[in-house]
Parts: sequence; structure tokens; C-alpha cells
Amino acid sequence: MEARSASAAAATLEEAASVPELLARGRSLCTPPLRAAVARLAAPMDTVAAYHFGWIDRDGKPVAGDGGKAVRPALALLSAQAVGAPAETGVPGGVSVELVHNFSLLHDDLMDGDETRRHRATAWTVFGPAQAILVGDALATLGTEVLLDAAVTGGASAADAARAVRLITTATRKLIDGQAKDVAFEAREAVTVEECLDMEGGKTGALLAAASAIGAVLAGADDRVSDALQRYGHHLGLAFQAVDDLLGIWGATEVTGKPHWGDLRQRKKSLPVAAALAEGGSASRRLAEQLADPEGRGEESEQVLAARAALIEEAGGRAWTQAEARRQHTTALAALDEVPMTDAVRRHFVALAEFVVVRER
Amino acid sequence: MEARSASAAAATLEEAASVPELLARGRSLCTPPLRAAVARLAAPMDTVAAYHFGWIDRDGKPVAGDGGKAVRPALALLSAQAVGAPAETGVPGGVSVELVHNFSLLHDDLMDGDETRRHRATAWTVFGPAQAILVGDALATLGTEVLLDAAVTGGASAADAARAVRLITTATRKLIDGQAKDVAFEAREAVTVEECLDMEGGKTGALLAAASAIGAVLAGADDRVSDALQRYGHHLGLAFQAVDDLLGIWGATEVTGKPHWGDLRQRKKSLPVAAALAEGGSASRRLAEQLADPEGRGEESEQVLAARAALIEEAGGRAWTQAEARRQHTTALAALDEVPMTDAVRRHFVALAEFVVVRER
Repeated sequence: MEARSASAAAATLEEAASVPELLARGRSLCTPPLRAAVARLAAPMDTVAAYHFGWIDRDGKPVAGDGGKAVRPALALLSAQAVGAPAETGVPGGVSVELVHNFSLLHDDLMDGDETRRHRATAWTVFGPAQAILVGDALATLGTEVLLDAAVTGGASAADAARAVRLITTATRKLIDGQAKDVAFEAREAVTVEECLDMEGGKTGALLAAASAIGAVLAGADDRVSDALQRYGHHLGLAFQAVDDLLGIWGATEVTGKPHWGDLRQRKKSLPVAAALAEGGSASRRLAEQLADPEGRGEESEQVLAARAALIEEAGGRAWTQAEARRQHTTALAALDEVPMTDAVRRHFVALAEFVVVRER
Repeated sequence: MEARSASAAAATLEEAASVPELLARGRSLCTPPLRAAVARLAAPMDTVAAYHFGWIDRDGKPVAGDGGKAVRPALALLSAQAVGAPAETGVPGGVSVELVHNFSLLHDDLMDGDETRRHRATAWTVFGPAQAILVGDALATLGTEVLLDAAVTGGASAADAARAVRLITTATRKLIDGQAKDVAFEAREAVTVEECLDMEGGKTGALLAAASAIGAVLAGADDRVSDALQRYGHHLGLAFQAVDDLLGIWGATEVTGKPHWGDLRQRKKSLPVAAALAEGGSASRRLAEQLADPEGRGEESEQVLAARAALIEEAGGRAWTQAEARRQHTTALAALDEVPMTDAVRRHFVALAEFVVVRER
């Protein structure tokens, strides 16, 4: 890394002092190449993808939306800076993780039968299941192509681009493993807390781990640094998912953009449920009985679901999950101590973690 | 390439003198690493994949089947030998193309609603749509991982492994593009022959092109050789698809393992249909009228579909497609002339092409 680039990066970083600014920087640097990658898709997939990303409405008219918080691109840029490279070095990594993230959203929404996301109709409900499957497949493919392109355009060495491909590919497979377990768990009466954490580590932790290290890998970081940054992202993902599980039960639809009681209706074995089932007291046993009962599955009234949420809380599932989110958050921050980085970069990793975890307190 | 390896490869090749032997060699070299790759998947995806590949039945009992013809692995091994490398150098490529091919089959069967493949119930009918989506996703991911592994185990240089990843990734995206067009065309009254060839070049040509060059790329072939071998595979794919389109209408279920008149029932815009619509005579016009009629869509009787097949034949769609298969076959063989290779290897490329194209004459 040249001294000139490193100081330019530091200057950029000082400008991006707050979380909203870090997120905005991730979006402004990554969205143009993200759009360029999506534009490679043949019609009608380019339209379906643009709708899914929130760039156009269902009639093809441009929309002023920003396509989500874009935490992953922000992390990817920051991880390049963690090893003294300019934020720009992380851009192909930020684009790649965003493509893979949205591949998984397209397929998950279809598999889960979710009809809304980010307060909009999901792509499969607008364009049909086949297009949601195909566009998801295509985004995953683009996620690899943009990293290989980085070696062609000189943004990374061929060896580092290949390492980044390995990072994103393995993360993608773990993500799919996690989703497969999530689906399989719905049909089971109970899962242990350990099984749930393993599933969530795949579903959410794997891609956040990749996002938190991919910029560093593109900048030539060694495995020790990459592993520590991945650990930060992994535990951050588990903290995020714990909060998401809480919102999935007790969050208002206006906040989550998802249907009320959706997780309970689908009998998702999320952390609060697993923790409540493990507790073993009277509320815990009543919850287990309800979940073992095939009667009325998926057709429970709001009242029944509200009573179930109360049982989970009574059995300690809510409090345990809140504590677990804090534990994972702390573990994530501890991993940062293993990587030598400037105080400014460290402060921003800490701030992004806080932003990801603190959504509903 | 060392002289020792090249002569060992030549010896292996002489033993594999016939097409059945070439296919058997591809299977015997590629199936063990293919199974090892699939075994990386977490439960229950490993089971779903093993069922799809024909290794186990729906109760999990091992099956003696061979999981299809495995033309692609045979081509991958041969392409390594085309540049003087041992067939073994192509193995990660053969495994990769087979993984990507089966990713597409899993998703296609679901999207097309096909209930049987290779005379067995398709995976989505046995394990549900979500598992078919997820296992397809996972196989595509493994298709990249096995190529990156080749650099780790020393089977290929890191640079050549990265080039192979690029080859398979771009082919995968073209394959998805082709499938997206195929789905989109079903809703249209007509497509041109050119649109149909473009769609089939993606759906079938892209992966056969990658299969025909990936072993050479892993062995360090230059772009000129890789391009020529890809052209062979691309046109072979178009020839194959022309034959497949013919079988999709006039093939017996016992031969194809697919439901009778399936392509006509789905109003697939395959080559015979596109060619018949382009002809413009009286049968052609009657066919166009039928396809424009939304009435009874997807619920036509066997009799109506048989009459439609007769119309396509009367309008010249069958004869044109047979001639097109021959043209594409010839173009494929011409591409081989651009690559210096031993007569033995060339003879085997020619024999495999003949095998792929001549299935129903």
C-alpha cells in the first residue's frame, strides 16, 4: 500500500464520521457498480432485479428509494481501510456481498411465502416464482463475476480476487445451509438453542462475516486478519439475528415491514422460541404442547398468536434473547482487538455494530 | 506439460476408444469427487442432492443407477487432453460442470412443473419446492468451490483455477439468461427462429461450451484454444437442443422419460415451433391462430396436441429443425480444426458429438 493512498483513505474516513455517513458512503460507492452488474442481465431479469432492489416500481418507473440500509457494503469498505487500503479497494467486495444478500432475499421470500419486504410487494408476487428463482440465481453468479472483474480492472491482484471468490462462495454455501435448516426446523416440534445458533450463524452470520473481511482480502490481508474480521462479522450477525428474532415476534409491522406474527404463524424455531422451550417451567411446557399440536397450523388467530408470544416471554425467551444479543455484540467487538487498525477505523466498526444491534430497545 | 504426463494421458486415451468407454471414464473419474463435494452439504440437503443425482431412492437406500449419460464430464476430460495434459487435469472441471448442470435441472424442473426426470419423480415433488431451490443454489456454489480447490490441491495453478471459475460463472449466467427467456417465451404467441437460437444457445450451448474447454483452461491453455473449444461445445449444444426439441414433440415418453406432448402443452417456443411459424403457409397460419388462442391453455387433450404436432410438421418445422441439427453439428466439428491436437483426441471429440446429436434418427 502506498503512503499516498493510505492518507487519502484516512481523509475519506474522517469525512465519514457518523453511521449514516458510513452507510451513505457505502451506497454511493457501491450502487453504481451494482447497477452496472445488474444491467448485464438479459431482459426480463434486469427489470425484475431492478424492482427487487427498489430502483423501479412495478410499472418500470424509477423510484427514489435507496434499496435498504446497505450495512454490508459499508462493512466491506471499512474492512479495506482496516488494513490501510483505500475504501475503494473494498468496492467489488461490497457489490458482491450485496448481490449475494439479495439473491438470498429473492429465494427466501419465495420459499417463506412472504408477500412484502421493505413495505413493498415481494418480487415473486409481482413477477411470478420462476422469475424470482432465476433472478436470484443470476445475482449469485454476478456476485462472483464482480470479484473476478476486480482482477481484470486492476482493483485487486488475481490471487486476492480468487481469495475473495473463495470467501464469498463459502459464505454463500453456509448461508444456504442455514436457510435449509431454517426451513427444516419449521416442521420440527422443537430445536435446541445450539441448533438455532448454528442455523442463524449460517443464515445471517456467514455473509456478515464475509462482508467484514472481503475488502481486507481484496487489499491482500493475511489469513489472521481476515479470520479476526470474519469473527467480528459472524458474531455481529448472530447479534443482529437475535434482535431480528425479537422483532419477528414483538416488532410492529410498521417497523419491520413484515406481516404481524409472521414468525409465529410459520412456527419458525427462532431464538426466543428455542430458549423458551429449553427453560422447562410451566409456560415452557404449555408452549411445547401448543407447538406439538398439528391442529390449526398456519391458521391461528391473532389472539392465539398473541397468547403464544406471551407464553414465550413468560418462559424467559424474550429476556434470554435480549441478553444473547448483548453477549454476541460483545464477542464481536472483542475480535476487533486482534487486528491492528487505526483508532478511527476501529471506532467506525464499533459504531456500525452498535447500529446493527440496537434497533428496538 | 511434462512429456511423461502427456504420454500417460495418451495411453489412457487409447484404452478409452469408444463413446461408452469415454463416458464411463468421465463417470469413474468424476463421480467420486462429485460425491465428496455433495457430501459437504448439511443435512437434509445432502440427501436431496443424492436423490436427485440418482444415488439413493426416496427412502435413502442406495441405487445402482449411474446418474445420467455424463457427456459433460467426458468433454471436460477430453479438453484437458486436447492440450496434451492428462485427462485427470480436467476432473475438477468435469465435476464443476456436472454440479452446475444439476443446479439448473433442479430449478428447471420446479419452474416447469415437471414431475418426472430420468424416469423418476423429480426432487421437488419428493422433498418440496424449498429444498429443490436450496439444493440447486448449493450445487451452483459447490461448482465454484471445486475449481478453487484444484488450486489448493495442486491440480491447477491459482491463475488457471481463477480462469476456470470465470468460465463456469459466465456460462452459468448465460444458462440462467437462456432459461429466463425460455420461461418468458411461453407467454408469447410467437418468437423468431433467431430469438429461439439465442435462447437455446444460453440454455444449452453455454454449459456445453464451458465443458468442452474447462479441462484445457485448467491445464493452462491460451484463450485462442479455449475459444475454439468453446465454439465446438456451443454449436454442439445447439445441435443437441435441436434434437431435444424434436424429441420434446415427437419423442416417445419411454425414450425421453418426460411426459408426452409436455413441450406443446406448455406452449414452449422450441425450434420446430419457431420454424413452423416463420414458414408462413396455411399450416403455419393455422398454428399461429391456435397459439394465439388463450382458450384451453394447458388443458388441451392428447388429440388436440397431436393435431398441433402434425401442423408443425406440415409447416416444415420438423424438417427444418432436423437440418438445423446437422448444420450446427457441422459447425461444431469445424471449430475443432482450429485446435492442434492428436488425431486420437480429435476422433473422440468427433465421436462424442455424433453421440450427442444422433439420438432419434
